[in-house]
Order: sequence, then C-alpha cells, then structure tokens
Amino acid sequence: MKQQIEIICIGNELLIGKTLNTNAHWMARRATSLGIMAKRITVVGDDVDEIASVIGEALQRKPRFIITTGGLGPTFDDKTLEGIAKALNCKLEVNEKALKMVKEKYEAYLKEGKIEKVELTPSRVKMATLPEGTEPLPNHVGTAPGVLINVKGTFLIALPGVPSEMEAIFEGSVAPLLKSEAGEVTFFETSIYADGIMESGLAPLIDQVMHDNPYVYVKSHPRGEERKPHIEIHFSTTAKGSKTAKERLGKTIIQLSELIERNGGKIRFQKKKQ
Amino acid sequence: MKQQIEIICIGNELLIGKTLNTNAHWMARRATSLGIMAKRITVVGDDVDEIASVIGEALQRKPRFIITTGGLGPTFDDKTLEGIAKALNCKLEVNEKALKMVKEKYEAYLKEGKIEKVELTPSRVKMATLPEGTEPLPNHVGTAPGVLINVKGTFLIALPGVPSEMEAIFEGSVAPLLKSEAGEVTFFETSIYADGIMESGLAPLIDQVMHDNPYVYVKSHPRGEERKPHIEIHFSTTAKGSKTAKERLGKTIIQLSELIERNGGKIRFQKKKQ
Repeated sequence: MKQQIEIICIGNELLIGKTLNTNAHWMARRATSLGIMAKRITVVGDDVDEIASVIGEALQRKPRFIITTGGLGPTFDDKTLEGIAKALNCKLEVNEKALKMVKEKYEAYLKEGKIEKVELTPSRVKMATLPEGTEPLPNHVGTAPGVLINVKGTFLIALPGVPSEMEAIFEGSVAPLLKSEAGEVTFFETSIYADGIMESGLAPLIDQVMHDNPYVYVKSHPRGEERKPHIEIHFSTTAKGSKTAKERLGKTIIQLSELIERNGGKIRFQKKKQ
Repeated sequence: MKQQIEIICIGNELLIGKTLNTNAHWMARRATSLGIMAKRITVVGDDVDEIASVIGEALQRKPRFIITTGGLGPTFDDKTLEGIAKALNCKLEVNEKALKMVKEKYEAYLKEGKIEKVELTPSRVKMATLPEGTEPLPNHVGTAPGVLINVKGTFLIALPGVPSEMEAIFEGSVAPLLKSEAGEVTFFETSIYADGIMESGLAPLIDQVMHDNPYVYVKSHPRGEERKPHIEIHFSTTAKGSKTAKERLGKTIIQLSELIERNGGKIRFQKKKQ
C-alpha cells in the first residue's frame, strides 16, 4: 500500500469528548479495505486557524488523499471550507453546480411539506459557497454537498460530519477514486487468541515469526483481565490476490501457534467470552 | 480554560480501523471535566519516525500537557518511548525506579502462579527502559509503568494503550496534576432537542443567542433521519462555580427555545426515541 490517506476530523464535540469519533474509525477501515493506508488521523475544533494549520501541515506531507469530516453545514461554526480556503490561499465563491444541488434539495423538502417555501437564505447559500476550483460531490442523504479539490497531486476532499451523509458521499464519490488509485492491492487480516502466556513471553516469539515472514504484520492486543492473560494476535498483509494473502497468513499463524504451544500457551480461534 | 492538552494515540490498529479510539474519547472527556481543554488529537502508527514527528510538532505548539496512549508494552512494535527519546534527542536508559515496579509486578505474578520464575527478560526490561529524566508512574492494573517528563514547561506523559491500564494511571497520577493546573474552573454542558425546524433555519437563531451570550457555546447536531428533522442543541460553558454556569446556560436555553418556537419549532428536553 503506497497510496496514503490522512483523515482530519473537525468538531469541538470530538475535543470535549461528547462524541465518539466513529467517523474516523469507519473511514480508516473502509480506506484500508480498499487498499489505501491511513497514515495519520487528526482531530481539531471549529476554529478557522486550527483547520487551516492542520490542512496546510497535511498537504506538506504530500499524501495522495486528505479527507476531512465535519463543518460543512449551515451554522456559524461550520468552518471547514473557510479553513481550506485559508490553507490554500484562495477565495470562497458561490459554486453554481453546488447551488443547484442545494436548491434541488430544498425543492424536494418543499414537495415533502417540510418547508413552506424554497428560500435561499444566507445559511443555505453558505453550503454552496466553496473554495475556488472545487468539484462539488452530491449528497443524497442530506443537504450540504461534499467538496473535492485537486491540490498539486493531493486529492483534498471535505465530507459532512453526520455519519449517514459522510458514508453516502464516501461510497458514491470517494470509494471509486480510492479503489482506482489502489489498483489490485487489497488488505487481508485475521486474528487468533492465546491463553496461558503473558505478552512479555509472547514478544520474542512474534519477533521471530515476523523476521521469517516479512510481508505479514503481527500485533498482540491484551484482552483479558490481569489475573487471566488472554491475548488477541492480529495478522495482516496486503497482497494482489487472496491466494497469496491466505498462504502468507496461514504460514505465519501455523509457525506462531507452534511456538506459543511449545512455550506453554494455548491457542483459540475465537475470542473467549469474558 | 487556558491550560491545554494535546492527545496523541499510537497504534496501527487505530489507522486500519480495527480498533475504535475510545481512549481519545475517554481522555478528552475527563480532561474537559477537570477544566483542561483538548486542543488537538492525533493518531499515528507504530513507527518511531512518525511518533517522533508528531511529538516534536506538538511540543512546538507549547501546550501545558501532551498525553500519549499506546506503545509502552513489551513487544517489538511498542515504540512510543523510542519515539519520545528521538523527539527529545535524549537517550533511553534502564530507569531503576521503573525496573523495581516491573520486578514487583512479576514477583506478584509468581505468587499468583501465573509464571514459574521471575526472570527479567529483554522484553520485560524494555518496559523499564525510559527516556532520561523520566518519572515513572505506577501501573496498578498492568505491568508497563507510565512516563512523565517535564519538557520546558510542557508535561509530556505516556500511558499504555490498554484502556483499563490507561484509565488507572490517569486517575492515579494524571488527574490530580490536571486538576491543580486547571484551578477552580470547571466545564458545564447540557442539551435540548428541537423538532420541526431544519438546521438551516436554526443557524441564524443560534447566531443571535451566541452574540447575546458570549460565554456560552451553542452547537447544533442533526440527529434525525432525512424525512424528520430532529436536532440536538448542545450548550456548554466554563465557569468558576456552578451557580454562574447554570445561570448562563439557563438564560441561553430560554432565549433560544423562545426563538425556535416563534419559528415553528418544538422543544424537547429529552432525546426522541427513534
């Protein structure tokens, strides 16, 4: 996986611990499954300077993709686009294609009886006021369009923070782009569980199998309570085909299982019920 | 809230979307409740250069606290301390106080029959090999001690990634430090819910009440489905006493509720069942 993505999540609710960042989790998982590796995830608040800084810093690292979530809505504290414009040193302007998308949404809301008239108030026009050179991405679930800007070889993409809207635009417009950049490479993973061995006893065994299986990444995650060690061992690899991946993972699992059992541990293939 | 914290979470499992970052959520919430504002949360993988970069960048922003989670254990991919040493350009050395903590843990494991002898293997000594000038923080739940280093006015703290261990060291050693830095300031928050008004209709009303109530932060979060708008409105403030906070929040809630009802919306004080 050479193509990389940085994820930037924007919202005070994440920084005060009001909201659990399921968006970053979902997007990291989807990008990985499409063959694109998340390199960094950053969370900042609803502050234009902070947003501009974090986007500017990410652009300097030249990932293939930067995807932001949050801050595209109609309220005063939806500041992502202002932050992007500041980072890119460009203007915000009413984007005619985006304005058409927003207007069509309110026309649909009118038909459904949710509003009494289609009025393009400043709060609504705000959702179509985008950085220069933006391609708006249709939002079939909510109102605010997503944003795609090509910045010197980096695709800078801004998605809403409402999970259903973020996921819908991601699947509709972003996933195909990630897939085409990733090529045929896919991510494969599986876990086994070890009992009766401590993580410090497992460490040198993992070192050995990773040395012998350079394309497989092995990581231990203690899951048990203090008195009963129960360790998840996660195996992952990226490969062009599932046959190669399965052979690699299978060989590594067999080798590590044997080492663990020789050292007094016991292997399970399912998580123990606590 | 002037004293700020940056949270840095380390682990490939977060970047591949295997693990939901509940640690960042828990710590942001706890820090906020203690009167310390989280300014940024960053997630990076198990890579010494990445860890060193993100810590170096955070130190340049001079927050009062930087707290890392993850990467303190005995395995090869527990690289946080190596990353910190690289960022601070200092050496890693066996810390006698930490070694004593680790040794006492294994002596306790021996008594419990979990291990057959107390052997300080390289994997175990690794957990006591800390950057120069470190104060180890006792870990009553697991084995690896936490780490506290004062870097030119910033408290750089490293905690384990296992949630129960992270939380125990935080409560035992970190929370009292945050509390003493925050002074008497506390964070207060509450939410109300609005039906029958769209977020774009709510936006100018929130603008108005925030203008009139400069110490209260008001943020709308759409929670309903597309066909039935249901919006959580979150009010927060920081104040020295609960009386001041309640008065501020109360006044703001009354003003916004009246504005919403005048615009055809309906206020609920509890979340609607979906």
